[in-house]
Amino acid sequence: MSGPTAVVLLSGGMDSATATAIAKADGLEVIGLTIDYGQRHRKELDAAKSVAKYFGVKEHRVVRLDLASIGGSALTDRRVPIPEGRPPEEIGTGIPPTYVPARNTIFLSYALALSEAVGAKAIYIAANSYDYAGYPDCRPEYYEAFAHVARLGTKRGVEGDPVEIRTPLILMTKADIVRKGVELGVPWELTWSCYHGRPKACGVCDSCQLRLKGFREAGVRDPIPYERGRDRKTNA
Amino acid sequence: MSGPTAVVLLSGGMDSATATAIAKADGLEVIGLTIDYGQRHRKELDAAKSVAKYFGVKEHRVVRLDLASIGGSALTDRRVPIPEGRPPEEIGTGIPPTYVPARNTIFLSYALALSEAVGAKAIYIAANSYDYAGYPDCRPEYYEAFAHVARLGTKRGVEGDPVEIRTPLILMTKADIVRKGVELGVPWELTWSCYHGRPKACGVCDSCQLRLKGFREAGVRDPIPYERGRDRKTNA
Repeated sequence: MSGPTAVVLLSGGMDSATATAIAKADGLEVIGLTIDYGQRHRKELDAAKSVAKYFGVKEHRVVRLDLASIGGSALTDRRVPIPEGRPPEEIGTGIPPTYVPARNTIFLSYALALSEAVGAKAIYIAANSYDYAGYPDCRPEYYEAFAHVARLGTKRGVEGDPVEIRTPLILMTKADIVRKGVELGVPWELTWSCYHGRPKACGVCDSCQLRLKGFREAGVRDPIPYERGRDRKTNA
Repeated sequence: MSGPTAVVLLSGGMDSATATAIAKADGLEVIGLTIDYGQRHRKELDAAKSVAKYFGVKEHRVVRLDLASIGGSALTDRRVPIPEGRPPEEIGTGIPPTYVPARNTIFLSYALALSEAVGAKAIYIAANSYDYAGYPDCRPEYYEAFAHVARLGTKRGVEGDPVEIRTPLILMTKADIVRKGVELGVPWELTWSCYHGRPKACGVCDSCQLRLKGFREAGVRDPIPYERGRDRKTNA
């Protein structure tokens, strides 16, 4: 007999791995949903598969959605450079070139369809407004608005049993996420956050810098290999 | 020099063809967006291409999105029968088996991403609450909720220039749509509404019945061929 289920948007990064651990800690069976949207590299998708396997998810769906043809982002368009070397305190100010138009809305819509079809109780999305203040679709009020769409725009919503939209990391810092992940046994070594797809994480893109800063502040060693950027005294 | 643009969700049916004509009448250049979501048949997609060509759209994008793997609908799952022979007055009561979970939310999300990437002023979607009262994502309040998501969840929204969500048919009956389409020169012969993909429209599925009723009530002859169902005195 299977219990209540969550659809967890699983990118392969440290945040969605932590969200998966939280969904399990909340007593839910997990269906991992990974969107292959034409990212520049495949390491994220491989990481998502490893994380899903580690957590023994009920099912892991990898769905191909073509966002690259829409363009407009450094994450899907090789002509747009990925920002590097910005100090962490500048990351999160303004909307960065790594913003993908309406990405989270598309991901949530797909998760909503899947949740309705399989009868999942909730969607977990690892959005985080603290470090990603520059992304409009990482703010709490945006998720409240989407939850309203889920209530009004689905059969389940009309029938009084809407799919819940849960954002357990929304108010956490990256250090909080590291501490929560350590508590719940997140396998950091299987996760991948770097915007590049080289053998080692670059250590200087926005995503690497936020990750390293989080580990440093939490006093935890990040086990993945870095090209540079890790060797600061509190993260040795 | 190109003028303001609309992204029009173009299915190939009579409603979206009319929405395309309205967008043009509103003075906008049209980018047609057709979602190939694993429908049972290809006639709809062929019709969308013909309609786009007829209206001389600026661009027509056909995007493949895998909704069939989600299942849960008669339109994407061959194991779920398409309802036939329901009298038109019963259609629109309750949520029908042709409901595709969160379909319009997924379509709008994708249209939103495209609109933001290309700088379109508005999205036109041919939703209609009058004849499709049974579909939760065809109601005006749902579109208001989605417009709120568009305002909060995009760079354009944050910058004070959100993409508008326009639903010009939302309060029209099918007969109103026929009258509007006749006024604007919609090529009905190029459109396809039947849930089946046979050489002639079946004439008895919900979609055919609503279409035929609309033409009958408007006193206009529907030029497409039907297997049956057309020969009633007011639509001869």
